[in-house]
Amino acid sequence: MKKIDVAIVGASGFTGLELIKIIINHPNFRLKYVANSEGGMSLSELYPALKSVVDIDIKKGDAKEIAKCANLAFLALPHKSAMGFAKELLDLGVKVVDLSADYRLELETYERYYCTHQDKEHLSRAVYGLPEFFRDDIKRAKLVANPGCYPTATLLGLLPFCKYIDESYPIFIDAKSGVSGAGKKCSDKTHFVFIDENVSAYNPLSHRHEPEIKEKMKIISKGVEYDINFVPHLLPLIRGEMCDIYCKLKEDIDPLEYLKEFYKDEKFIRVFDKPVTIKGVGGTNFCDIFAKKSNSNLYICSTIDNILKGSSSAAVVNANIMSGFEEDLGIPTIAYVP
Amino acid sequence: MKKIDVAIVGASGFTGLELIKIIINHPNFRLKYVANSEGGMSLSELYPALKSVVDIDIKKGDAKEIAKCANLAFLALPHKSAMGFAKELLDLGVKVVDLSADYRLELETYERYYCTHQDKEHLSRAVYGLPEFFRDDIKRAKLVANPGCYPTATLLGLLPFCKYIDESYPIFIDAKSGVSGAGKKCSDKTHFVFIDENVSAYNPLSHRHEPEIKEKMKIISKGVEYDINFVPHLLPLIRGEMCDIYCKLKEDIDPLEYLKEFYKDEKFIRVFDKPVTIKGVGGTNFCDIFAKKSNSNLYICSTIDNILKGSSSAAVVNANIMSGFEEDLGIPTIAYVP
Amino acid sequence: MKKIDVAIVGASGFTGLELIKIIINHPNFRLKYVANSEGGMSLSELYPALKSVVDIDIKKGDAKEIAKCANLAFLALPHKSAMGFAKELLDLGVKVVDLSADYRLELETYERYYCTHQDKEHLSRAVYGLPEFFRDDIKRAKLVANPGCYPTATLLGLLPFCKYIDESYPIFIDAKSGVSGAGKKCSDKTHFVFIDENVSAYNPLSHRHEPEIKEKMKIISKGVEYDINFVPHLLPLIRGEMCDIYCKLKEDIDPLEYLKEFYKDEKFIRVFDKPVTIKGVGGTNFCDIFAKKSNSNLYICSTIDNILKGSSSAAVVNANIMSGFEEDLGIPTIAYVP
Amino acid sequence: MKKIDVAIVGASGFTGLELIKIIINHPNFRLKYVANSEGGMSLSELYPALKSVVDIDIKKGDAKEIAKCANLAFLALPHKSAMGFAKELLDLGVKVVDLSADYRLELETYERYYCTHQDKEHLSRAVYGLPEFFRDDIKRAKLVANPGCYPTATLLGLLPFCKYIDESYPIFIDAKSGVSGAGKKCSDKTHFVFIDENVSAYNPLSHRHEPEIKEKMKIISKGVEYDINFVPHLLPLIRGEMCDIYCKLKEDIDPLEYLKEFYKDEKFIRVFDKPVTIKGVGGTNFCDIFAKKSNSNLYICSTIDNILKGSSSAAVVNANIMSGFEEDLGIPTIAYVP
Repeated sequence: MKKIDVAIVGASGFTGLELIKIIINHPNFRLKYVANSEGGMSLSELYPALKSVVDIDIKKGDAKEIAKCANLAFLALPHKSAMGFAKELLDLGVKVVDLSADYRLELETYERYYCTHQDKEHLSRAVYGLPEFFRDDIKRAKLVANPGCYPTATLLGLLPFCKYIDESYPIFIDAKSGVSGAGKKCSDKTHFVFIDENVSAYNPLSHRHEPEIKEKMKIISKGVEYDINFVPHLLPLIRGEMCDIYCKLKEDIDPLEYLKEFYKDEKFIRVFDKPVTIKGVGGTNFCDIFAKKSNSNLYICSTIDNILKGSSSAAVVNANIMSGFEEDLGIPTIAYVP
Repeated sequence: MKKIDVAIVGASGFTGLELIKIIINHPNFRLKYVANSEGGMSLSELYPALKSVVDIDIKKGDAKEIAKCANLAFLALPHKSAMGFAKELLDLGVKVVDLSADYRLELETYERYYCTHQDKEHLSRAVYGLPEFFRDDIKRAKLVANPGCYPTATLLGLLPFCKYIDESYPIFIDAKSGVSGAGKKCSDKTHFVFIDENVSAYNPLSHRHEPEIKEKMKIISKGVEYDINFVPHLLPLIRGEMCDIYCKLKEDIDPLEYLKEFYKDEKFIRVFDKPVTIKGVGGTNFCDIFAKKSNSNLYICSTIDNILKGSSSAAVVNANIMSGFEEDLGIPTIAYVP
Repeated sequence: MKKIDVAIVGASGFTGLELIKIIINHPNFRLKYVANSEGGMSLSELYPALKSVVDIDIKKGDAKEIAKCANLAFLALPHKSAMGFAKELLDLGVKVVDLSADYRLELETYERYYCTHQDKEHLSRAVYGLPEFFRDDIKRAKLVANPGCYPTATLLGLLPFCKYIDESYPIFIDAKSGVSGAGKKCSDKTHFVFIDENVSAYNPLSHRHEPEIKEKMKIISKGVEYDINFVPHLLPLIRGEMCDIYCKLKEDIDPLEYLKEFYKDEKFIRVFDKPVTIKGVGGTNFCDIFAKKSNSNLYICSTIDNILKGSSSAAVVNANIMSGFEEDLGIPTIAYVP
Repeated sequence: MKKIDVAIVGASGFTGLELIKIIINHPNFRLKYVANSEGGMSLSELYPALKSVVDIDIKKGDAKEIAKCANLAFLALPHKSAMGFAKELLDLGVKVVDLSADYRLELETYERYYCTHQDKEHLSRAVYGLPEFFRDDIKRAKLVANPGCYPTATLLGLLPFCKYIDESYPIFIDAKSGVSGAGKKCSDKTHFVFIDENVSAYNPLSHRHEPEIKEKMKIISKGVEYDINFVPHLLPLIRGEMCDIYCKLKEDIDPLEYLKEFYKDEKFIRVFDKPVTIKGVGGTNFCDIFAKKSNSNLYICSTIDNILKGSSSAAVVNANIMSGFEEDLGIPTIAYVP
């Protein structure tokens, strides 16, 4: 199969680094262009750990330059920055996998929780990059919006149960994330002394991933408005994310057996008989799920690597699908354990 | 005020150590007797960190010896072991604060979740040592059963809301504990390599603290059966515990204002306008609480130091009350932060 | 004994917080004034963990105001800032314990490694606040320069051996510090993701604590120039510091027995037969020391809590001595273990 | 190139797991046999993280069975156990890479520090598996003894300087290891509560890797007896190891330029101008080295992943060389950063 040339814009963040790590070992993608906001350095200067592994000059991102050398671009940029780039790239014929929030939501939801949208045209054609539920759309997409990390873990746990969940009861999601989810910027939220030996919730019941979860639940369930309540926590660990989901069943099912059957053909979903761990998925594109009920109360626990299945490896899976490759081509599956 | 002589049985565990640390600095308690299951060593041999601070011989626990030298004993023993000791001590006229589960529950609940009870007589007179709700009973008690750590944090968050919670909806508790809660024994659950950079739930919906919470809720609410669903997690940190509680309100209240009013005279409860942290209570007897609602869905977050407010300092508070001392005498309030 | 009113300038940093924690529980010091660089908030706003424990308004530091209400001031400021304040306070008759580097070194050394000195007058009368070696000078001092954290741990390990160390061989110090030593400022050096699961040396053979160690060694040994080589490392933990010292003996001694004898009257030095730990001193003013030799090669290992014995509790010990109090009055000795 | 069938004996330990992770992705080795001491389970039962990735039955190790299906065996066993197996396998014509200490040392050294040797015959022909110094011998070897983790990092830092080091001065090695180096067994040395927020030295000046370092230094330097002093520490992190080496130069060289030239053809050695980190090599077979001098005092800092370059990936490199493959075939080079 012919190799496809790709660009990565936003090399400085954690998800940019993970994209690079996957793409340089990918059999069918060829890394032709890497950019961050300054440019003017090499990859191994930016990441000493990549010395002797890969080297390539980092450019200051330029859509026209990208269009000259690449057929597909990964945008690992903050929201707002992403949509400017994406628009230009798409108009130049470059396929885009966008890791930001810019194309994840319907217009109204986006503008309510983020800002004015500057690329409404492409927004309307963007596909939500959760292959387990939107695979066929991704195949034909020119622009894929990679889901948020929390929505990925939550939706993969919740969506299978849509028809069995009693929507007259609230759904509570107690989410827990490693610090890489807070980004590379230094702040009180990322200072070692404040994070270590500590846990705290942030933006409880008002995190922007709550409407994303709600909107996708509604789409998949063909119109049901679920009462989604989302409380994320920051944990003293680097990578990984767990979403504990609590809701009410309206029908008597065996949640584990149902899940196993539901996901039996999905390569990156593993259903476990015992509680899942964050470490078991660290370094991989797996989403591990456990479920248990007590009477009609349902508990679902879903874990992912927030910067892989929750971002960068999921992006490459989407790029694989958009390119007609096997979904798992070049995708990491071996956990960093121990 | 005359000093009271006390004994600590179970010096080897984490809660035993915390008891020692508090008692040796307590102005009105005098540490006369320390025991563990082997005896025959000194405190500073067992805990090198106590060298030059305190030294006292550790005995092999013996109720008659205790009765000779102490008026009050703290039992920091595993359940089952505790009730044998407590019975003998009480019969010899020694007051007991028991940190185990042996006297926390009603007989039927205890025997269903633990084992056959061997001291039914004293069980019926034991007082549940949560001063914020059972203060007057503790004053008169000869035997106080210290609450479990999870029930402490959960009940202090939930009980104030009893009359406002819609009991036809389930209550979900997503609890998170540091590893000191798993005890000093070495196992996969406590091995650094398995805990570090990891999180997992254990005994989801089947932990023995669930019936304890349910039973106390029922007592305080005078008979309401709440649908308690409890899922504890082990976190990569040493001390501290957070209980995130999710439930449904049946009346429209401002949860934070209500909590502040409810607890305005409690010295060891702090209600915060922002999400509370585990670190803010580490090393203290405080329980920090935050609450927020979204429509009628209520989120309460409660944090304690699991081996202090969740065990040892709470035990000394109870001993203070039983002895007619000020409740906060000698009780740690300055967090280990940073 | 009459209480002495004190001020703390520099409340925002970690050492400022530790000073506050000690002083509010100190029987003979009364905290009358707390300042940081902005002022205009209360202590419990700055440190939510201190809510319900202590409250006092934080001022913008002003020497004249301090002189009105306090007899002694602790300066927990960056170097350079400290000397301006100290000069003014001393001229107003306020005794000063300075936690910065400004008065630790002889003029020439200071100006070579830091900057031009702006208070040469007081510098010449400042006393180096290491009580184990300069106790009598501290008693009479108006200005005490608190030693650096690394020099504290290193000198307490090395100085006893001065007369036995072969000065024709280099002395190597492999130092290891928790992240609180890097301060509260957010940077790559303090970002959780870079620190956790990592270790690295910084400023190897060129850290500014190297000349401090060298200078004090020379003073105590009455003129010997030791060949000090200092390599500090940042460890993934919050508080604590270990200095591993490697050198050559010129005489055959039993290092442990010698140390025990040497320090037998020192309350805050503990000599151990087994390797010492960082955790054993966390939360205390102890310096724990272990030593062992192999032929004539000597290994000394010294641990302290970097922000206590390495800074704030040491400062209060100095203030105790300057005030004629017992050296250990109000000084923490119980480690945070577990 | 024809694939070679291999066996892994000792699947339960950390190094066994790392071997499996490498071999299942290796293009030229085929994993035919996996054993631990019990057998009777599958790989994904032993390691849930490997579910859906690889599955193979784990056998109770049996040399004859191995000889039937494999041409090369990796022994990830404790010392003593390894030599029994190795002997039988070698006699059956199976090549062996032994990860234990059993064949690393000369007979006399081994028996002094470990136990009586039961396979003297093969011991005399075993090759020390440090390819950077013994590559040609490894090519022809039937039995390769993988170096200890500390000796690997230390020797790769020290050996290049053999001819420049002044052997009349002691060499001090301050080593630091993550907890995976202490193995999977639960003990005080691996309990989370004792390790976290702590550091301590263990076996200072008497660790068994000291004679290994000494012996190999003597061999490479053709007879020089260096005065090696080795002090290892346990750090609160999972994987990675740093060896800080302090010694005296007898000639004036630029250590960094010299190192770069010395190692310019080595694929797995990276010489850095800035202090190296543990994280930069985590998950890889790299050894990163930094060096600096102050006058004639030399500081060398060397980092490896203790269970990869310090054990399992180094073993596969040796197997590559023994099999005539490219040295870096299937060897991990991309660090787990962040």
